[in-house]
Amino acid sequence: MTSLTLALDAMGGDHGPHVTVPAALQALKLYPDLRFILVGDQDQIQPYLAQSGQDITDRIELRHTTEVVSMSDRPVHALRCRRDSSMRQALDAVHRGEAQACVSAGNTGALMAMAKVVLKTLPGIDRPALVSCLPTINHKPVYLLDLGANVSCDSDTLFQFSVMGSVLCEAVTKQPRPKVALLNVGSEEIKGNDQVQQAAQLLQHTPQINYQGFIEGDEIYRGKVDVIVCDGFVGNITLKTSEGIARLLIHQLKEGLTRGFFVRMLAKLLAPSIQSVLKQMNPDHYNGASLIGLRGIVVKSHGNADETAYLQAISLAVTEARRRLPEMIKQRLESILLDINS
Amino acid sequence: MTSLTLALDAMGGDHGPHVTVPAALQALKLYPDLRFILVGDQDQIQPYLAQSGQDITDRIELRHTTEVVSMSDRPVHALRCRRDSSMRQALDAVHRGEAQACVSAGNTGALMAMAKVVLKTLPGIDRPALVSCLPTINHKPVYLLDLGANVSCDSDTLFQFSVMGSVLCEAVTKQPRPKVALLNVGSEEIKGNDQVQQAAQLLQHTPQINYQGFIEGDEIYRGKVDVIVCDGFVGNITLKTSEGIARLLIHQLKEGLTRGFFVRMLAKLLAPSIQSVLKQMNPDHYNGASLIGLRGIVVKSHGNADETAYLQAISLAVTEARRRLPEMIKQRLESILLDINS
Repeated sequence: MTSLTLALDAMGGDHGPHVTVPAALQALKLYPDLRFILVGDQDQIQPYLAQSGQDITDRIELRHTTEVVSMSDRPVHALRCRRDSSMRQALDAVHRGEAQACVSAGNTGALMAMAKVVLKTLPGIDRPALVSCLPTINHKPVYLLDLGANVSCDSDTLFQFSVMGSVLCEAVTKQPRPKVALLNVGSEEIKGNDQVQQAAQLLQHTPQINYQGFIEGDEIYRGKVDVIVCDGFVGNITLKTSEGIARLLIHQLKEGLTRGFFVRMLAKLLAPSIQSVLKQMNPDHYNGASLIGLRGIVVKSHGNADETAYLQAISLAVTEARRRLPEMIKQRLESILLDINS
Repeated sequence: MTSLTLALDAMGGDHGPHVTVPAALQALKLYPDLRFILVGDQDQIQPYLAQSGQDITDRIELRHTTEVVSMSDRPVHALRCRRDSSMRQALDAVHRGEAQACVSAGNTGALMAMAKVVLKTLPGIDRPALVSCLPTINHKPVYLLDLGANVSCDSDTLFQFSVMGSVLCEAVTKQPRPKVALLNVGSEEIKGNDQVQQAAQLLQHTPQINYQGFIEGDEIYRGKVDVIVCDGFVGNITLKTSEGIARLLIHQLKEGLTRGFFVRMLAKLLAPSIQSVLKQMNPDHYNGASLIGLRGIVVKSHGNADETAYLQAISLAVTEARRRLPEMIKQRLESILLDINS
C-alpha cells in the first residue's frame, strides 16, 4: 500500500488541537501508511506531540500559522482575509498535491467557499454538496445531501445533487442504479415548495437517475432508498435533529434504567447488549461529512467532535483517498451528463 | 362541567372510520361531558357504532356525506369543489357554534386552506400555523411551529409565528415571557437563509418577545427554550425525522435485546422499565397538532394515526376547547400587537 498524506486543519472546531492532534496520533497508530500535514499554531500543537515517539512524529509535518477562520467569519470574509489560516493552508496542500485529502472541523460555510475556490468543482457541477451516510432500519446506509453547505438551493442545484449523490453511492457501494428520492413534506406529487416540485420534474425526465419520487422525514431511516436529496438548510436541521433525538432517547433510557435497585442490577447485566445498540445509533460514530463535487477530497468534521468522533472523520478521508473518489465521481458524472445533454 | 361538542372528520386519514370512530367511542367513555358530531359516510361509520350501548350513541350525532377530501387534492381544489366533504362540514360545525373544536386526520394543506376560509384568522395574523409540543431532556415540553401548514414563509410570517407561539405557550403553561428561538443551521448571527436572518432582525427589535436567537436541530430536545419557530417545510421534516429516528432506535433496541437466551430473559424482566421510557418517546403519544391563529379550534391528527394516537388528538381538542384557547390567544395577541404597532 502506498503512503497517504492528509492535511489537517488542526485549529478548526470547538476544541482545536486538544481534539485534532490526539485523534491524528491515534490515526497514525491505526494506519501505518498514513502521514499528516498538521496546519496550525505550533505553540498549541507541540505539547500534544511531546509524549509521542519519533516513529510517530516522523510521519507528521507541522506547518505553523496563527491565523484561524472563526465560526462567525462570513464565507466571503474568510475567503478574502484568511489566506494564511489553517483551513486555507490545509486546502492549499491538497491543491498542490502534497496531501490527498483535507479534514477540517471549522466553519462549514467558509470551508465550502474556500474549497470551491482552491480545489474547483468538477465539470458540470456548480456547487459542492456536503454528504453523509446515515444508518437505516435494514442496516443499509443511506446517503443524505446537502447537509448545510448550501442553505438555499434552486431546482437545478437539487438536480445536480441528485446526480452527484447517485454517482457517489454507485461508486462507493458498487450498487447499480441506486434509488434516489427528494426529501419533502409529503409523498404526493402536489406536495412541497417550488424548488422540490421543479427538481422532481427534471428528475422524472432523466432516465439515467433511478428517481423514486418524494420521501418524508420519517422514511429517511427506513432504508427504502439509497440517496436522499434536499437543500442544505433542511439537511443540516434534519441531521442535527436526528442527533438530538437519539441523545434524548439514550439519556431517558439511562435515567429509566437506574431507578430502583433491582432495575439497576438487571440493567448492569444487560449493559453490553444495550451499549452495542446505542453505539450503532450514537451520532459520534457517524461523524465526518464529505464535500463532494470538488476536484479534491475534503472531509468536514462536527465542530464539537471529540477525539473518537474526529478519528471517524480522519478514517473517512483515508477511505475516500484510497478509493480516489473525485476521479471516480468525475468519470461517472461525465458519462451521465453526456447522456443527459445529448 | 358544561357539555362539550367536537366535530370529527370521520373519513380523514389513512384508515378513516376504522380508526376515527373507535377512538371517538373511547373518548366518550373517558370524558362523560363530551359529545360528537361525526361527519362522514354513514354506511361506513354505522358498523363501528353497532356494538355500543344507547348511553354512548345518544351522545353522537351522525352527519352523512359521501364526499371526502383526498390526500392528493390540491388545497385550492378542495376549497372550491369539496364543500360537502366531511372535512369541510366538520369545520362548518365549528363555525356555526355547533361544535367547540374540530379534529381531522386528512390532507393538511386542504385543512389549512379550508379552516382559514371558514373560521378566519385572528386580527393581526395572516396565516395559521400548525404547532405541537415535543418532549425534552429536562421534561419541559417545547412548542414547535410551523409543522407543515405553510411550506414557504417570509420573514414577516416567521415573526407572526413567533408571536403566536409565545402567546400560546404563555396561555397554556402560565409561564411569563417564554423563551423563543428561530431554528437555523447555526447559532451564530451570520448563519441561515434570508428569511431567518430578517425574522431575527424583527424579533431583536420586539421587546415583547423574549427572543433567544438561533437554535440548531440538536438543541430542539434540550429544553433550553420554550418555543421554536421555522417554516412549515423545515418543521414538518424535523418532526417526521424525529419520529423516524425514534422508531429506528426502538426497533434496534428490541432487536438487540432478543439475541441470545440470557439477554432475552433479562430483557423480559426489565421490560416494564424499558417500555415506560419508550412510551414517553413514542411519537404516537405526541399525536395531534393545533392549527393556531384561527377564530376556532382545529386539531390535526397524523394521517396514519392508530386508535390510541387518534385518541390523543381528540384529548388535545378537548383540552383546548375547555381552555377557550382562541379567545386566550386573541386577547394576548391584541395587547402585544398594540404595543408593537404603537
